[in-house]
Amino acid sequence: MTKGPLVVLTTDFGLVDHYVGVMRGVLLGICPDARVIDLSHEVSPQDVVGGAYLLLCAYRYFPPGTIHLAIVDPGVGTERRALALRADDYYYVGPDNGLFSYVLQDMAQRDRIGGRLEGDRFVLGDRCQAVHLTRDDLWLKPTSDTFHGRDIFAPVAGHLGCGTRLEDLGTPVDRLVAIPWPWPRRDGMGRVTGEVVHVDRFGNLATSLRDEDLPSRNVELLVAGRKVRGLYRTYGEARGGGPVALLGSCGLVEIAVPNGSAARELGVGRGEPVVAMPAIG
Amino acid sequence: MTKGPLVVLTTDFGLVDHYVGVMRGVLLGICPDARVIDLSHEVSPQDVVGGAYLLLCAYRYFPPGTIHLAIVDPGVGTERRALALRADDYYYVGPDNGLFSYVLQDMAQRDRIGGRLEGDRFVLGDRCQAVHLTRDDLWLKPTSDTFHGRDIFAPVAGHLGCGTRLEDLGTPVDRLVAIPWPWPRRDGMGRVTGEVVHVDRFGNLATSLRDEDLPSRNVELLVAGRKVRGLYRTYGEARGGGPVALLGSCGLVEIAVPNGSAARELGVGRGEPVVAMPAIG
Amino acid sequence: MTKGPLVVLTTDFGLVDHYVGVMRGVLLGICPDARVIDLSHEVSPQDVVGGAYLLLCAYRYFPPGTIHLAIVDPGVGTERRALALRADDYYYVGPDNGLFSYVLQDMAQRDRIGGRLEGDRFVLGDRCQAVHLTRDDLWLKPTSDTFHGRDIFAPVAGHLGCGTRLEDLGTPVDRLVAIPWPWPRRDGMGRVTGEVVHVDRFGNLATSLRDEDLPSRNVELLVAGRKVRGLYRTYGEARGGGPVALLGSCGLVEIAVPNGSAARELGVGRGEPVVAMPAIG
Repeated sequence: MTKGPLVVLTTDFGLVDHYVGVMRGVLLGICPDARVIDLSHEVSPQDVVGGAYLLLCAYRYFPPGTIHLAIVDPGVGTERRALALRADDYYYVGPDNGLFSYVLQDMAQRDRIGGRLEGDRFVLGDRCQAVHLTRDDLWLKPTSDTFHGRDIFAPVAGHLGCGTRLEDLGTPVDRLVAIPWPWPRRDGMGRVTGEVVHVDRFGNLATSLRDEDLPSRNVELLVAGRKVRGLYRTYGEARGGGPVALLGSCGLVEIAVPNGSAARELGVGRGEPVVAMPAIG
Repeated sequence: MTKGPLVVLTTDFGLVDHYVGVMRGVLLGICPDARVIDLSHEVSPQDVVGGAYLLLCAYRYFPPGTIHLAIVDPGVGTERRALALRADDYYYVGPDNGLFSYVLQDMAQRDRIGGRLEGDRFVLGDRCQAVHLTRDDLWLKPTSDTFHGRDIFAPVAGHLGCGTRLEDLGTPVDRLVAIPWPWPRRDGMGRVTGEVVHVDRFGNLATSLRDEDLPSRNVELLVAGRKVRGLYRTYGEARGGGPVALLGSCGLVEIAVPNGSAARELGVGRGEPVVAMPAIG
Repeated sequence: MTKGPLVVLTTDFGLVDHYVGVMRGVLLGICPDARVIDLSHEVSPQDVVGGAYLLLCAYRYFPPGTIHLAIVDPGVGTERRALALRADDYYYVGPDNGLFSYVLQDMAQRDRIGGRLEGDRFVLGDRCQAVHLTRDDLWLKPTSDTFHGRDIFAPVAGHLGCGTRLEDLGTPVDRLVAIPWPWPRRDGMGRVTGEVVHVDRFGNLATSLRDEDLPSRNVELLVAGRKVRGLYRTYGEARGGGPVALLGSCGLVEIAVPNGSAARELGVGRGEPVVAMPAIG
């Protein structure tokens, strides 16, 4: 990049308080050239899985070299490690609590990095490097126990963006806390079972099913006792009726009510099972 | 502009999901110099009229050369055209569904551009140029059917900002889908009837009445059976009582309850008729 | 700063309407080099105290030379003065209604500036300079009576950021409207009484008590008839039980329910008295 480093923020800090602005101030004080942009600050409080999902859908759309500074951190100040990570072309800074683990599993599945899940740990392979943040001389002083975003993570992202090498931020680690992605399960009768992994602002339900998991594109989904037809190509095409299935922009099968809310109409949320089977007729 | 191009985002994507951040990432990957700022992402889902209103109130306050990238797009992936438009000193990129039509009617009325409304189409005149986005080699691949903001509009805005000429983005068009502005109607008795066109976060009601539409500045408005006195000059001046009328910052007559919400107190929303008549006494 | 000036916005304008985007447009039209970032736009409508609190917690974390453009302004267009202020290393632009007064009292208490509270005025001392904005040739024309953020404050911040000297923005003033900080009161029995000064998005209650106000770190707080133990060091350490006290990132004693909302559990809000006493045992 000829421009300053791109730093992308993802947090559960919300936009009502001073938390995000203060992090930006600290970061820009250390690395005035940084271009700091937002992915979202409206992850539900302490919802690490929700943050992991946003990063999964977003990471590939940023230019190489982008630094993802992500903080959903119910364990702030406790034993949980603070991390910096390079994986393929991107950097990640945040707590070691699984927040980056959907991205890592996706990258590994796409053969962009080596590494594999072992229970609730992701063992790093090639094209990956991680450090436990221990260089406290880079942090803000005094360092609070309740706001590492401001006092540890933002300064570290600033130093990383403005020239400090990853390996100089702390001590190497080779396995990270992971949240296993809910890979779909197939039964012997051509049915595939996934689950709702995200509800977006439109009430669309993203599922863990990918295009290639479906028995066919002429498919019927069973969700909360309701049948949902698909795959439609666009929201507009499907207009007029109830919930329909289509391929969402994250690459996952999505259930939508055009001009309405599928979450509300079906009365379901994250974790709800979704069974796909070939449509009859 | 000596600085990078200014790109202003207006969408109904909200700030909870990854949509806006991802668009920014794509745009900055193509045009790293761009300065990307937000007008609003809290247009109500699929509310094209709401988006058109925000653009109307905002467009003149940005420097010449600004690119407005605006997406409220219930028809994404269907036959509706994707557009890029130059009008007077500004550029607009987004769906051809009326989103830019309040701006165009306002510009035409101010003689900044030629052109006129014909039913539900705006026929472009001089100082205007529009293209249907057909240069798919400029888009992200694969191009989804559900997120043109990321895959078509953001890349096109990036290319436009970093040197591609408008005419090279697609094929010329000369009439755009339009939503007619609700121009006030006058009767023979000195009364003028407009309507509520927007409710803001303070509960202030913006109406379609402009200063020059009023029979006098000593005026009485009739809204939902309630009389509202005006024009007051400031919220502070009017403090203490019920709803009052003043000239809002968008150049439209506005109904406000100082330190309260006119929308709540009057129990009305967009589309509510507002009748202005000379005040007695 | 080698980069353009850093301008930090704090308002009650919300993110739904066009207000903030328009201010940014005006500012960047005047000072294209400015880096304009957000502290918060979700101060409750007309809540000057809420805005003052956010500025208090944030100001020290921005680089020297930062311009705070802050607008919570129920008196817009009335007699209240419009201000620009230099205090220590920072600039402040906004209405003279107490919005900057928590910052000023904090700076004075830390000996970063001179000056003192006299009733509901803050009398400026050394390392401070303020002007009443009267140079209307710098403002947007026509200048509305209802949106000084766009027409007066943003242009002034733009000029200040791009080279106009503070003293050239208006006429000198030496006392500002102030909201007195609720300093804790001590009784003869080792008890200290403060109050809740802010409720954040997690439902954490920030109090006016600082670490040094407490009789000991082994302390018991009385809030709304409930006993709250502290000081805990981290949210994680305290997990499992009801509300606990710890030292928040703003430097104030905070009451939190780990993974829950203290505001909801205790049923209290801003202004609620909080009594600290030594814990027994």
